[in-house]
Amino acid sequence: MNTNEPTELQNLLTDQLRDIYWAEQKLAKTLPKLAKKAQSPALKTAFTSHLAETKTHIQRLEQVFALLGLKPRAKKCDAMQGLVEEGDGLAEEYAGSPALDAALICAAQKVEHYEIATYGTMRAFAKRLGLTEIVKLLSATLKEEGAADQKLTHIAESKANPEAQQ
Amino acid sequence: MNTNEPTELQNLLTDQLRDIYWAEQKLAKTLPKLAKKAQSPALKTAFTSHLAETKTHIQRLEQVFALLGLKPRAKKCDAMQGLVEEGDGLAEEYAGSPALDAALICAAQKVEHYEIATYGTMRAFAKRLGLTEIVKLLSATLKEEGAADQKLTHIAESKANPEAQQ
Repeated sequence: MNTNEPTELQNLLTDQLRDIYWAEQKLAKTLPKLAKKAQSPALKTAFTSHLAETKTHIQRLEQVFALLGLKPRAKKCDAMQGLVEEGDGLAEEYAGSPALDAALICAAQKVEHYEIATYGTMRAFAKRLGLTEIVKLLSATLKEEGAADQKLTHIAESKANPEAQQ
Repeated sequence: MNTNEPTELQNLLTDQLRDIYWAEQKLAKTLPKLAKKAQSPALKTAFTSHLAETKTHIQRLEQVFALLGLKPRAKKCDAMQGLVEEGDGLAEEYAGSPALDAALICAAQKVEHYEIATYGTMRAFAKRLGLTEIVKLLSATLKEEGAADQKLTHIAESKANPEAQQ
């Protein structure tokens, strides 16, 4: 690394931390709406249990802020806002349709992957900076985001609507 | 599935197909700019080789349209537009910084994961609909998108800037 890189890389890590802190808070507000709209019990449960995980992810981010000696601060994330709006649009378009659950899964997986990408790059930067405790916290969340995504894929492939579950 | 589900699910698949067709075309225009901005040869190569793959992905999507009996049509994807704009913002903010490559990787991985999420849900819907040939085409692209993302993670962890490569 050249002399300034650690500082600049840490600035980038902080930028992304504030971005994902906003995104997770947005998701915490969005998941109950998704759970309410979902038709199949499996999907309702998936959204509800991911809400509990999301609250833990927010707490872990607050630990990361503390480890960096910073106060938690969220920065509005336009991409996440766009993904949620795209999801709202899909939910509206497929309201009352037997493919509504599939549409909700589609929207939710885009959000999950936005988070996976953000946590993944943050973890790479933290590794380069030798921030071991932060790497551990981000790894724990990444594992849960990956599992949540796989659960949604499983539901999409097998039980995208109540009829299909019978 | 109830009677209308296959039709509705296929509509959703078509929606996502038009969305990702727009996103891939946008990416094909964006990758040369990213390659130009990248500082490290490894990152320049990663962006350039992903451009070649992206062109193949566009051709595969055209095959999917054909298999569905549709003409290829792109639908502007606001989320992808937002991700590219977020990337432009980061690139501008970190221009001249030793963390520029890290910022470009961050932006590119968000785009990759948007694509991975979209291809993943499309493949799940195609599986449910028994569209075997389409599943194969989407799987081939998904594999390449996953590999591109891993390559970026590797670069982010080990050689985010020219100095770090020496």
